[in-house]
Amino acid sequence: MSDVFENVMELAKRRGFIWPTSECYGAVAGFIDYGPLGAMMKRRIEDIWREFYVIREGYYEIECPTIAQEAVFIASGHVAGFADKMCQCPHCSEYLRADHVAEAGGIRNASTMKNDELAAALATCTCPACGKVLWKVEVFQFNLMFKTSIGPGSQRTGYLRPETAQGMFVDFARLLRFYRDKLPFGAVQIGKSYRNEISPRQGMIRLREFTQAEAEIFVHPAEKNRHPRFARYAGYSMPLLTYVQQQQCGEAVTMTMQEAVEKGVIANQYLAYYVALTHEMLVSIGIRPEKLRFRQHLPDERAHYATDCWDAEIHSGRFGWVETVGLADRTDYDLNAHAKQSGTPMTVFIQYDEPRKVPRRRIIPNMSVLGKQYRQKAKAIFAELETAVPTKDGADVVVDGEKIHIPADLFEVRDEIVDVRGEDIVPHVVEPSYGIDRMCYAVLEQAYDEDIADGEKRVVMRLSPKVAPVQVAVFPLMTRDNLDTIALDITHAFHTKGIQAEYDDSGAIGRRYRRQDEIGTPFAVTVDYDTKENNTVTLRDRDSMKQVRVPVADLPEIVAGLVAGSTKFAELK
Amino acid sequence: MSDVFENVMELAKRRGFIWPTSECYGAVAGFIDYGPLGAMMKRRIEDIWREFYVIREGYYEIECPTIAQEAVFIASGHVAGFADKMCQCPHCSEYLRADHVAEAGGIRNASTMKNDELAAALATCTCPACGKVLWKVEVFQFNLMFKTSIGPGSQRTGYLRPETAQGMFVDFARLLRFYRDKLPFGAVQIGKSYRNEISPRQGMIRLREFTQAEAEIFVHPAEKNRHPRFARYAGYSMPLLTYVQQQQCGEAVTMTMQEAVEKGVIANQYLAYYVALTHEMLVSIGIRPEKLRFRQHLPDERAHYATDCWDAEIHSGRFGWVETVGLADRTDYDLNAHAKQSGTPMTVFIQYDEPRKVPRRRIIPNMSVLGKQYRQKAKAIFAELETAVPTKDGADVVVDGEKIHIPADLFEVRDEIVDVRGEDIVPHVVEPSYGIDRMCYAVLEQAYDEDIADGEKRVVMRLSPKVAPVQVAVFPLMTRDNLDTIALDITHAFHTKGIQAEYDDSGAIGRRYRRQDEIGTPFAVTVDYDTKENNTVTLRDRDSMKQVRVPVADLPEIVAGLVAGSTKFAELK
Repeated sequence: MSDVFENVMELAKRRGFIWPTSECYGAVAGFIDYGPLGAMMKRRIEDIWREFYVIREGYYEIECPTIAQEAVFIASGHVAGFADKMCQCPHCSEYLRADHVAEAGGIRNASTMKNDELAAALATCTCPACGKVLWKVEVFQFNLMFKTSIGPGSQRTGYLRPETAQGMFVDFARLLRFYRDKLPFGAVQIGKSYRNEISPRQGMIRLREFTQAEAEIFVHPAEKNRHPRFARYAGYSMPLLTYVQQQQCGEAVTMTMQEAVEKGVIANQYLAYYVALTHEMLVSIGIRPEKLRFRQHLPDERAHYATDCWDAEIHSGRFGWVETVGLADRTDYDLNAHAKQSGTPMTVFIQYDEPRKVPRRRIIPNMSVLGKQYRQKAKAIFAELETAVPTKDGADVVVDGEKIHIPADLFEVRDEIVDVRGEDIVPHVVEPSYGIDRMCYAVLEQAYDEDIADGEKRVVMRLSPKVAPVQVAVFPLMTRDNLDTIALDITHAFHTKGIQAEYDDSGAIGRRYRRQDEIGTPFAVTVDYDTKENNTVTLRDRDSMKQVRVPVADLPEIVAGLVAGSTKFAELK
Repeated sequence: MSDVFENVMELAKRRGFIWPTSECYGAVAGFIDYGPLGAMMKRRIEDIWREFYVIREGYYEIECPTIAQEAVFIASGHVAGFADKMCQCPHCSEYLRADHVAEAGGIRNASTMKNDELAAALATCTCPACGKVLWKVEVFQFNLMFKTSIGPGSQRTGYLRPETAQGMFVDFARLLRFYRDKLPFGAVQIGKSYRNEISPRQGMIRLREFTQAEAEIFVHPAEKNRHPRFARYAGYSMPLLTYVQQQQCGEAVTMTMQEAVEKGVIANQYLAYYVALTHEMLVSIGIRPEKLRFRQHLPDERAHYATDCWDAEIHSGRFGWVETVGLADRTDYDLNAHAKQSGTPMTVFIQYDEPRKVPRRRIIPNMSVLGKQYRQKAKAIFAELETAVPTKDGADVVVDGEKIHIPADLFEVRDEIVDVRGEDIVPHVVEPSYGIDRMCYAVLEQAYDEDIADGEKRVVMRLSPKVAPVQVAVFPLMTRDNLDTIALDITHAFHTKGIQAEYDDSGAIGRRYRRQDEIGTPFAVTVDYDTKENNTVTLRDRDSMKQVRVPVADLPEIVAGLVAGSTKFAELK
């Protein structure tokens, strides 16, 4: 079998899963089109994601624009820090991702080097475009955000968002209100994000425009170990490749989420819950568990905002382990950053079960004496005294830069016990972030198979029925004697039930099966002469190639059950 | 009742339908966020659109990037011509949409004036920002595409697409192959488009980033009057405001699609079919027919590429008639433009039923004489002769810019009859193009209502159950005696059936009803003490406020039927 990437992409192009973008003008690297079948499959994957996060977890989806104003990304740190190290080949002028070129040239830790250090290291590396030794290059930072301007006259700088997450942070106050001021709550987005990659060369894996599905879950910082539904995944077991194992070049360790949290392998219940949910979700769209691993970020690899971070990595025959989902505890980093930049507090008032008695020291000035003695400064002194720390001798205050000592006899110190109803806290954010395009590629790559059918080589996409674009094919044995009309009626009945059925009457039955096998259609119905006698048809299973006869009237329900996974083909009699 | 726009937008903000974007940094005009309820409603509207176009019409959806390279928009004409007339106020420096300011100042036909003509007319108009008379301004073109650059070093200019349509045109060859080289076929996209409006001031009506749902239907130019499913809408009747009626200030004329095509009111069956489908679709999402009209473009209003164009306009209490869907016969304009720009033919080979006998005149040169006489030029002359038009005297050819006369005795003219199997034709494109955000706004505005319930003013969104974000609310009468557990189980049973149910146990029942009325939840279930006795609950209808008791076990099916419209509440006993 030749390289699986080549095989999958050839099939994907030919049959309408994935196309190069604006091919007739020469495709631009980092962009792809989803063709008719690819777009359908992608939508099914997104809808499965929604089943987990929106329906089951109850986190509402919102939709923010893909363009946002500069202030958002100043706060998030993207304007200053979202950059890759770049250099330009002195021979062929190609722009290169400096750390990637260095790594390909055998330089270790290229990604953590400073610019001049990396430039020195690159001297012996070769340019991947022209093959010449780089010798002398300059390394500089290239910001990965696409920039544009909003309105005429370059009135306002805008950027295409590099992640959907910021929209949820910026909407925090509105979201909090929507969820009636109670933690925990979550918001999700599925939508386009953009990264102006320097030199993307990996097909669907490294795109300049891609689709993310992100959930931002806002939690009380003291309750990260109390996920209300943790019981669901407490016993869920899977291999975890911790950072300690990686440093020791060890193997992943299989354990339950309960153990992972108790042993401190995963930082808290919230993170562990979504690690397990992600595993379950990826398996449900057709990723084989043995091609899936969860790898913890190394301490120097973690983003500046995260305390613990895990990647779901899927193994590709071409690209090795590919980061597909990132799960991070972003702490209160983002909300604090936006609160500071915007001047809007991003807190939740948490009411105590009972008001708490809190001791408070109040300073009550003798206003008449103060007024006489300090005149126009008296009001300012009065204000400053409120927060001053008095000693036996008196208190020092600063007014207009001048330090003034107020003798103890000019005020009274009163120690009180006050009722405090609650406190303002900044929630922490736990974020599962999914790369939908990488999931689509992984699903396609893992589904690709070749076997022998009817004595000939067969290419078959073993897509899960849940994600297969066409769910059932309908063939009339002949296009005469009314068989075609019956088949069209069956197709229509499937459509009415919301099942994607494709009618095909062209060519021999064997050839029609091959066409459907190649696009992963899991089931096929054939209308033959017996159908006219007894109202039954054959229903064929793509993978086992077995056939059963079932009544026409039961077809929509049977196929709906097979697609949903509630019925198994082998159980049909 | 105060202005409906104010009321709707206040409710939309407060309850989580529509939010200003990045409000904490000062919202930027022309952008909005869909909050949790708005995003859910928008998705339902998009899915209804898919039911019509993808499931029923069978046109597959594709997904192209929102960024495209410059060549695409050079071909489409957007780089040269997609611009608005702009001026800048000399007093306050505000950028203004010149034709809009002129129209507001009572100038007629401002949109068709030349720049200097318009500048002169603006002299007496006032700036809408500072209120001063403009006096002397310059009018210039402002291109409405957002520009960016792809890759480092400004390697390549890219634009955010101003319409999704171009993606389908550019993919024509791939689509044709997918549909096995047969006309008619269609492709659709639902996605973001971008227009850098000069000064958008109309909330959701004029956005800089918006969602379009577009279908491009590729048809044989000679078959535009033979839509295969025309019978479905032939008798569909609705008022049409033709351009003739508009010129005569007359009323819309009600007629069937059959009549409209026969009388030449609508250019062809294809266009009439999608005009009627659009009417049916808009009514199905909750637009009242009396607030909906179809207006034909005036001859000088039509886009350069269209032969006939109709707008579905929805009446708004604030904005008047708002163009919401555009239906155009774009002819072969776009495919020809891309074929020319890219050098890739965009044609379909149409095979004749029988090969046609076609007379052809061939010129057969006498090579030996030609070769001797013209030597190294002989080969070029031979090639040119093939397409030359011979006379009795001979034929003229041009080789390397030199005109050469070839005497008649150096070639033989043979008239033949050849078999021609078919011909290459450039398909025409019929395009229905929907503005999803405007549909969302219209649905919200028309749903807004106030009435009296339980002796108090009630605000109620009369959303169609098909588009309401929350489909059913579930209330326990009390949060004790197990009523809450039963209500949570019912909520869960709804979720399992894919019904969006919201559990609410906070406050008096009346207050909970009001909360749900305000977000348009069409049905509400209350669990009370009788539920424990006989396993029934009350089911309440939002609009009639009537209640019936139904068995708990039947709830999911009953509510699914009510939401789909297959059951009417009044029929429940």
